[in-house]
Amino acid sequence: MRPIIAITMGDPTGIGAEIAVRALANKRFYEEARPLVIGSRGPMEDGLRMVNSDLKLNIIADVSKGRFEYGTIDLLDLDNVDMDKLVYGKVAAMGGKAAFEYIVKGIDLAMAGIVDAVVTGPIHKEALNQAGHHYSGHTEIFAEKTGTKDYSMMLAHKDFRVAHVTTHVSLRKACDLVKKARVLTVIRLAHNAMLELGIEEPRIGVAGLNPHSGEGGLFGDEEIKEIIPAIEEAKGQGMNVEGPVPPDTLFAKALGGQYDIVVAMYHDQGHIPMKTAGFELDLATNTYKSVSGVNITLGLPIIRTSVDHGTAFGKAGQGRANAESLEEAIDYAIQFARGKKRA
Amino acid sequence: MRPIIAITMGDPTGIGAEIAVRALANKRFYEEARPLVIGSRGPMEDGLRMVNSDLKLNIIADVSKGRFEYGTIDLLDLDNVDMDKLVYGKVAAMGGKAAFEYIVKGIDLAMAGIVDAVVTGPIHKEALNQAGHHYSGHTEIFAEKTGTKDYSMMLAHKDFRVAHVTTHVSLRKACDLVKKARVLTVIRLAHNAMLELGIEEPRIGVAGLNPHSGEGGLFGDEEIKEIIPAIEEAKGQGMNVEGPVPPDTLFAKALGGQYDIVVAMYHDQGHIPMKTAGFELDLATNTYKSVSGVNITLGLPIIRTSVDHGTAFGKAGQGRANAESLEEAIDYAIQFARGKKRA
Repeated sequence: MRPIIAITMGDPTGIGAEIAVRALANKRFYEEARPLVIGSRGPMEDGLRMVNSDLKLNIIADVSKGRFEYGTIDLLDLDNVDMDKLVYGKVAAMGGKAAFEYIVKGIDLAMAGIVDAVVTGPIHKEALNQAGHHYSGHTEIFAEKTGTKDYSMMLAHKDFRVAHVTTHVSLRKACDLVKKARVLTVIRLAHNAMLELGIEEPRIGVAGLNPHSGEGGLFGDEEIKEIIPAIEEAKGQGMNVEGPVPPDTLFAKALGGQYDIVVAMYHDQGHIPMKTAGFELDLATNTYKSVSGVNITLGLPIIRTSVDHGTAFGKAGQGRANAESLEEAIDYAIQFARGKKRA
Repeated sequence: MRPIIAITMGDPTGIGAEIAVRALANKRFYEEARPLVIGSRGPMEDGLRMVNSDLKLNIIADVSKGRFEYGTIDLLDLDNVDMDKLVYGKVAAMGGKAAFEYIVKGIDLAMAGIVDAVVTGPIHKEALNQAGHHYSGHTEIFAEKTGTKDYSMMLAHKDFRVAHVTTHVSLRKACDLVKKARVLTVIRLAHNAMLELGIEEPRIGVAGLNPHSGEGGLFGDEEIKEIIPAIEEAKGQGMNVEGPVPPDTLFAKALGGQYDIVVAMYHDQGHIPMKTAGFELDLATNTYKSVSGVNITLGLPIIRTSVDHGTAFGKAGQGRANAESLEEAIDYAIQFARGKKRA
């Protein structure tokens, strides 16, 4: 049975509906999966108009009513926005509230086993805040609503993948949080995620924290005290782990195919190479031509993948958004859903 | 007058002589400059054999004897190695001592105005150490011998350039060293370097230290306390500076042409995107197909550019080294030397 992939529409004043429409014009998603959108009618109809789409909307109130046929976008309509009161590209509490409700609905359906994966569209933190929902982002919402403590943010650009030991903390705090137990947890999450993707003996490269991995303790000792012991324990548990690899060359090696996934110690250590590899700027318009990249939460009881970009308010409502990242996020969700079925 | 570019041969047991021979097979270097090698006869003759070169050696003891004609490599021979006692790919005190002497000679010639720039080949830190020279690398030797206090390591891959506020210190220490005065100094060094390259109004992007540049103090306050004041002061002095730009997107923007140079706060913040963009791994041989990248020391009274890779002991003596980085380093040295003449 093709997995059911729920795509949350994201903030209705952003590019979420438009990229959902663009992505679902790809026939392969209907051959490989049963996609549906959790969102609202107004923005989705706008999205269809913006891209001159021939696709039809099938408005449903229940997943069981989905047709899952190419040519029709099944929309689980939460009927929670009034487009007369919203402006594309403008933060609004109504938008934040709606975006939050799509996510919660997606989590509930996945936890109930009604959908196989949730793919999240872009949300705006300020809009969420204005609606009274105080989270750093999707990841924290998913962790809280599923009661998950040990999770990790993974980014992927094609076969280049990074799982993070720490994310939204200061660089000083990140240094404090590089502890053996946490590093080992993230190595394990990365290992399991690769198994779910069907990679039999995942090759994991673990980054050092300090330049040159500390050069034997000369520039910092977190490698000696925390990272090497975690790597040794992971090896003892049968995982194929190398490291600590000097951070400056590790990512070039991973991009070249030497590792299936990298374990990065802090947000920018993983995010910088990922966006350097996946983003491409168009200088003339000062916007991104390409925003390849998927954000995946490891360690949840459900599958969650996401676009790796924001609501792109500067482009919203104009019909010139790029659906590449969303398409990759759907692809990854399908791969993980297949892996779960195999397991 | 074409600038005289002195190329130090690097450790004689590494790939330095081979890549010098390969680089000097490019006619453009003789059209645009007067290159010479500071090194030793034995390894240079080996280099010529390894690559089946038709070039001839002109052994000289004084720069004034250089012919600077395409087809001949002028070699300032320091006559300080016995190749019968050295093995390619093996650390040796004799190699470290020789490499150090090439560098010191280059610095002396540049300080005396006899050569216009020094381009350094790869050295091996352990060999230097065995020879009794205790430095982190070339940069520290150049700084000490020229009496320079305010310098910065710049990396370049084509038009993608990064100057570093800190380098070979632990990540915790790097956080401590991000201070307004030092950030301003590096902005100024970056600005001046771009002027020397002939860029009229250099566009400088300054990175934050923390993820999302600290998000208004939420994840660290170095941006608010140190980086923003430095940027404001640089702007007040008429420099075209933007920032703090969130580190994860800054480098994609710079690669896309939005900035002439980036100011990075720590070693890996700058090195990771540079090597991700410039290095290309060949998985079959587990070696780099491409190692684009130049290392330039800003703030010295002389021009110094360098390869951005090591002695490649695994490839040394085999005739399969890649001269790309050295060629780029010579190109950059020529550009800077022209800039100095203009000024």
